[in-house]
Amino acid sequence: MSLIVQKFGGTSVKSIARIKNVARVVERAAARNPVVAVVSAMGDTTDYLFKLAWQVGGKPNRRELDALLATGEQIATALVAMALSDRGLQAVSMTGNQLGIITESVHTSARIVDIKTERIRRYLDDGYIVVAAGFQGTTPEGDTTTLGRGGSDTTAVALAAALEASICDIYTDVSGVYTADPNVVHTARVLKEISYEEMLEMARVGASVLHPRAVELARKHRLPLRVRNTFDPDHEGTVLKGADQMEIQRPVSGVTLDRNQARLAILKVPDRPGVAGEVFGALAERRISVDMIIQAFHEDRSVNDITFVVKREDLAPAKESLTAVAARLCAEGVLADEDVAKVSIVGAALMDQPGVAASMFSALGRAGINIKMISTSEIRISCAVSDSEAERAVRIVHDLFHLGETDS
Amino acid sequence: MSLIVQKFGGTSVKSIARIKNVARVVERAAARNPVVAVVSAMGDTTDYLFKLAWQVGGKPNRRELDALLATGEQIATALVAMALSDRGLQAVSMTGNQLGIITESVHTSARIVDIKTERIRRYLDDGYIVVAAGFQGTTPEGDTTTLGRGGSDTTAVALAAALEASICDIYTDVSGVYTADPNVVHTARVLKEISYEEMLEMARVGASVLHPRAVELARKHRLPLRVRNTFDPDHEGTVLKGADQMEIQRPVSGVTLDRNQARLAILKVPDRPGVAGEVFGALAERRISVDMIIQAFHEDRSVNDITFVVKREDLAPAKESLTAVAARLCAEGVLADEDVAKVSIVGAALMDQPGVAASMFSALGRAGINIKMISTSEIRISCAVSDSEAERAVRIVHDLFHLGETDS
Repeated sequence: MSLIVQKFGGTSVKSIARIKNVARVVERAAARNPVVAVVSAMGDTTDYLFKLAWQVGGKPNRRELDALLATGEQIATALVAMALSDRGLQAVSMTGNQLGIITESVHTSARIVDIKTERIRRYLDDGYIVVAAGFQGTTPEGDTTTLGRGGSDTTAVALAAALEASICDIYTDVSGVYTADPNVVHTARVLKEISYEEMLEMARVGASVLHPRAVELARKHRLPLRVRNTFDPDHEGTVLKGADQMEIQRPVSGVTLDRNQARLAILKVPDRPGVAGEVFGALAERRISVDMIIQAFHEDRSVNDITFVVKREDLAPAKESLTAVAARLCAEGVLADEDVAKVSIVGAALMDQPGVAASMFSALGRAGINIKMISTSEIRISCAVSDSEAERAVRIVHDLFHLGETDS
Repeated sequence: MSLIVQKFGGTSVKSIARIKNVARVVERAAARNPVVAVVSAMGDTTDYLFKLAWQVGGKPNRRELDALLATGEQIATALVAMALSDRGLQAVSMTGNQLGIITESVHTSARIVDIKTERIRRYLDDGYIVVAAGFQGTTPEGDTTTLGRGGSDTTAVALAAALEASICDIYTDVSGVYTADPNVVHTARVLKEISYEEMLEMARVGASVLHPRAVELARKHRLPLRVRNTFDPDHEGTVLKGADQMEIQRPVSGVTLDRNQARLAILKVPDRPGVAGEVFGALAERRISVDMIIQAFHEDRSVNDITFVVKREDLAPAKESLTAVAARLCAEGVLADEDVAKVSIVGAALMDQPGVAASMFSALGRAGINIKMISTSEIRISCAVSDSEAERAVRIVHDLFHLGETDS
């Protein structure tokens, strides 16, 4: 019987009642397969521990911060193992150290370098359900480390790969990956499957159901990853797999909306080498990420307009940097536009279907929605539109590609 | 420079402000000596974790209970190490596993079987202050265990013995071992020194400043143990040492009061072999501890009265047992007396001074206090008196032996 790895996030184990619910979900899987259940810290535990650390004073020592934060997952795993014992099952909680998750000797964002699975395998062979602490590992010297953002998802995928699990189920509070945000599009539905690459693009443009680091790791190991709902465990959820393994071919998988956007332009910059480097170098220095860069020629070809999109909270510092650069380069000026949202379609086979982009642009045009900017990747087409028209744009595109209809 | 082990209990690390205070106390010691600081869980953390475990349902799995409870000390040690770092000191927190504290494979009350000190010594050699998690250890297989009641005191003494520390300082919220409870006797003062044996007797009769298990361990290793006040670190506290190492000889070290007492008597039991075994066997079956047993002959020598003292909360079940035994043995009846408190004097050289007992009895008699029962050990004389007269009795005895006067 093939092993299943299940991962339960902080909201799934927020209270004792929810921990008991998790035990029921694990029990069901364990009736048919050996199970490793990876668990995050309960609800706001990590935030609470963080706050304690900062109250001690100054920037916390990073080794000690890891030792502190790791207790959150240890509490949750022990309670889940108790809940399983209480249901008459053999279960054992394991810390990062006990799991043999060896990481770099870097604190607060260590990468996994090896997993020594002997001890886990021994417990599984003896019929135990292993309840594994997410987010943590150990240095070769035995110091506790944590894996940083998306850590528990990463733990689950890494354990599934090391133990050659048949699938890794990521349990969360939604039923899977939706074709669009159901709060915006009432006909949005859960996809049966999606490719790793599409998921990564969707994460980049606003959908946050899985951490990209875990998706990348699953892709590397070609490990099927499934998003499921802890509170609706009968729902089949969405399976992530390789594009070549997909059973269903479709031009567009989903529509995403990112409202946290703003547009900046530097006008009539001299057209000479090094200009773009100077503009974006100034922004990089302030650690401001930039997207959708467009360089437009003017008629006399001696000056350009450079336009791009930043996160809305970065607008003020970005504008300040850009104004300084504009003065230095003798540009005409800087324009800022906060009324921007990004509507994107994502699809594994998008570039093989040249008509898709054109029909998206036409549909938005017919609806009187002005497209401010366009950018594309292999599997994504994004349009920047006015924020006030963004939700309508999402609905139009969702309808256009019949995403509300089942695809099997 | 000789190593010092310091231990800080739950009240000493109850809040971030108190953790910062602990860091100051450790810093002072670390300026002169290498230091290992053993830390308990913050305030009520252990109770909170216990409650979570019981909410999961039924009796918690003991392995998981240990995994859960151990996080309390891990949180506190990480925060203390951060507070020391924040003061510019090199400090490192260590779990029971990292400390190399190997215990039996018994959960919730494991005994230490070995301490592998290599890792601690390496940190000490590198100039680190080691902040050690109290109350916990690890099985040889790497499972977390806890040491049960008095666990953190035991950790401190065991580490001090293994590392050949010059002294083990137990920091608590009182300034040392008092000659009597200062709430009862206003002239009570802190003893400069006391023998391990006296301390154990005092713990047995009501003084709870140190756990007997830690005192026994210190005695076994002839390790000086000092009780000090976290909130008054300038106070020298009380040093525990061997009776033969004491600098000061005195007949009486302290007076204790245990009000949680009750007296039971079974009257006119036939005087034949096996009777006492039957009486106390019935109580032992119910796990009721008995103290101050007196067997009194009647004139005709064919029957006895057997009188003894139990804890007050055990009175009802003890009386029930005894009534059944009385019927079986055809005894005359059973008497219960709740108006009992035990006043004891403790002194290492008590038995070498035959006049001491007599002068205690006389002083109480002169004050009109009736002595209900007497029991003695090598270093203790206890009198059961009426509860309403007990505090007055303590003051009379404290005065009688001039315990309020300095002894150097």
